[in-house]
Amino acid sequence: MSRKIAVVGVGQTAFTRSCGISIRELCFEAFKEAVDDCENLSPKDVDASIICSAPEYDKQRTPAGLITEYLGLNPKPTFLAEAICASSSVGTRLAWSFIKAGLHRTVAVIGFQKMSELASAESQERMLRGADVMWESPFGSMMPAYYAMFARAHMHTYGTTEEQMAKVKAKSGKYSVLNPKAMFRKEVAVESVLKSRVITSPLKLFDCCANADGASCLILSDADSAKKMTDTPVWITGVGLASGSLSLGARDTVTSLSCATDAADEAYKMANLSPKDIDVAEVHDCFTIAEILAYEDLGFCPRGQGGKLIDEEETYIGGQTPVNVDGGLLSKGHPIGATGGSQMRTIVMQLRGDAGKTQVEGAETGLVHNIGGIGVYGAVTIFRR
Amino acid sequence: MSRKIAVVGVGQTAFTRSCGISIRELCFEAFKEAVDDCENLSPKDVDASIICSAPEYDKQRTPAGLITEYLGLNPKPTFLAEAICASSSVGTRLAWSFIKAGLHRTVAVIGFQKMSELASAESQERMLRGADVMWESPFGSMMPAYYAMFARAHMHTYGTTEEQMAKVKAKSGKYSVLNPKAMFRKEVAVESVLKSRVITSPLKLFDCCANADGASCLILSDADSAKKMTDTPVWITGVGLASGSLSLGARDTVTSLSCATDAADEAYKMANLSPKDIDVAEVHDCFTIAEILAYEDLGFCPRGQGGKLIDEEETYIGGQTPVNVDGGLLSKGHPIGATGGSQMRTIVMQLRGDAGKTQVEGAETGLVHNIGGIGVYGAVTIFRR
Repeated sequence: MSRKIAVVGVGQTAFTRSCGISIRELCFEAFKEAVDDCENLSPKDVDASIICSAPEYDKQRTPAGLITEYLGLNPKPTFLAEAICASSSVGTRLAWSFIKAGLHRTVAVIGFQKMSELASAESQERMLRGADVMWESPFGSMMPAYYAMFARAHMHTYGTTEEQMAKVKAKSGKYSVLNPKAMFRKEVAVESVLKSRVITSPLKLFDCCANADGASCLILSDADSAKKMTDTPVWITGVGLASGSLSLGARDTVTSLSCATDAADEAYKMANLSPKDIDVAEVHDCFTIAEILAYEDLGFCPRGQGGKLIDEEETYIGGQTPVNVDGGLLSKGHPIGATGGSQMRTIVMQLRGDAGKTQVEGAETGLVHNIGGIGVYGAVTIFRR
Repeated sequence: MSRKIAVVGVGQTAFTRSCGISIRELCFEAFKEAVDDCENLSPKDVDASIICSAPEYDKQRTPAGLITEYLGLNPKPTFLAEAICASSSVGTRLAWSFIKAGLHRTVAVIGFQKMSELASAESQERMLRGADVMWESPFGSMMPAYYAMFARAHMHTYGTTEEQMAKVKAKSGKYSVLNPKAMFRKEVAVESVLKSRVITSPLKLFDCCANADGASCLILSDADSAKKMTDTPVWITGVGLASGSLSLGARDTVTSLSCATDAADEAYKMANLSPKDIDVAEVHDCFTIAEILAYEDLGFCPRGQGGKLIDEEETYIGGQTPVNVDGGLLSKGHPIGATGGSQMRTIVMQLRGDAGKTQVEGAETGLVHNIGGIGVYGAVTIFRR
């Protein structure tokens, strides 16, 4: 099949600790920016919307109906897609499928989360239920605890150090100051990370991303429409998606996320590319160790060499594969359903040459790695100028 | 595009008030039945799963990960699709798109709900939040209240009577005794409906469907695979989906559900059929009035003539268009995420000629009408032998 699919518009709200507006307003901001971002697109060109979020953090049930009405998109089809933190990557893959299948020409993928909607204790209780509530949650399995296990195992197996993890945050801080939509816009020295308070050993405060409020929007279209709508379409050439067991006990290893490797395999194959062909990448750095795992799971370096890759600054601009040059989750904040869309927006802007001071010169291919939970859902999406 | 898509296996648990098993076990039962239903299909042929539910009724967050692991489907892609009561129809349309787009060959659509998981008061509070929580829920907008408004408006505008609504339940009861998986298997006289206690006038107890626990599964495949897997593929030839405003105040009318009409238009056009071509249909009779609206929204009779259609028994077996000959939601019960899949299972069995005593002789084309909420999501799916 030769039907090509492009991103024609991208939008994102600022990511903040507490946005003070409703979810419909959050989504409107992101949607409007995406529509305005495209030279020749009107909201009425949008044939369907896919709303992406982890709905347990919201007071509104079935948010797709609410948001679609507020955006003026009735009677167009809509529904909610959920894969926790990978929700908007799943939504993008669904939009891609709708267009490829010939069902719709132009589809909006709107991801959001308002983590400030519920009280903190209630949010944490919901987060706990992301593990198997019969067999794992009762033991207090929180996200930092899982990723601390991954970190400890990686240190034990490959000699990865806390300092190497801290360097991931230092890179994030360096680029964060150039991202006006990031929640934390501040350089952070390696020493500061190492001295920050312990959350779950070996992870410290600055090794962890923070909950946030925010929304993102991508508008996808088929090639014929895209060419009429914009001079700078960015093509989606690979949409990998895979799952890993929800239970940690069912896994063969905790030093990598198999869902990421499996999704990457599918995406590289579809795009007919290999890891070395990627000019710029966004990876799911919910914790510093997660970025190091991503380097290895995506094949940017051999297994066990992720720490060395950041030591050698190969994922900085100018290095082998610049990664998270928008600050990543560690600096931007992590509004669960919006995160994948935000990562994709960054890559689209890079491939258009619109990334300003963080532009990777001559970037032609980009990759987004977006993980749901502890590696339950892995999505890898490849873009080409 | 000529790629045809078939249903190759269908499964469903019994629908019950309280199943006493976990959601993973519920889904396993339906999935296993669907796999066993297909002559030549192994679980490992399934390339992706789509889990469909209204997740607010469950203690487990991100159920797709849990269920996929329990079913042994890792590392295949999975995620949750939600459009409240229309979730599994949306999931079916997504599976259809995946296959049509060439991403996957064989996809399992698993819908479930365990309404007994939460205490009744908690479930009702969640249900209330299905309306706009800022502007409508505070006024106590429950499902029976909305549908009572639709009924009252239809009575006022078209002269529809409570007796006509009661006749819908009498038909449901008549066929329910032949469906071993229905929750209520009992004939109900028109007088009994009219004398049952008032829930929200003019709706009485027997005008309303009941919450239930249950799961359903459909397995879809492309034509090449389908022909190897089964001698009785049933083809999906139309997948209509549309939205209506979440807010009642934003609607032009309350005597029809525009999302149903819009979805039907799309489905008929795709299938190149008109209402008179439909041999057997399943419609979303969450309340008796909803079935009468469906007759009109689907074009089985002119606007306002739904009451007359049931008076004349034209939706009984032997009539113009037999509707809900498995008892419908009114008798089967309504496990939200599983309902669309259950409707589709009935139509698939009808088109295979496997419907036993409720078989509509010579049925070649069938239709499923599945509504989310008060007409927020409308899905119409057309099947052909």
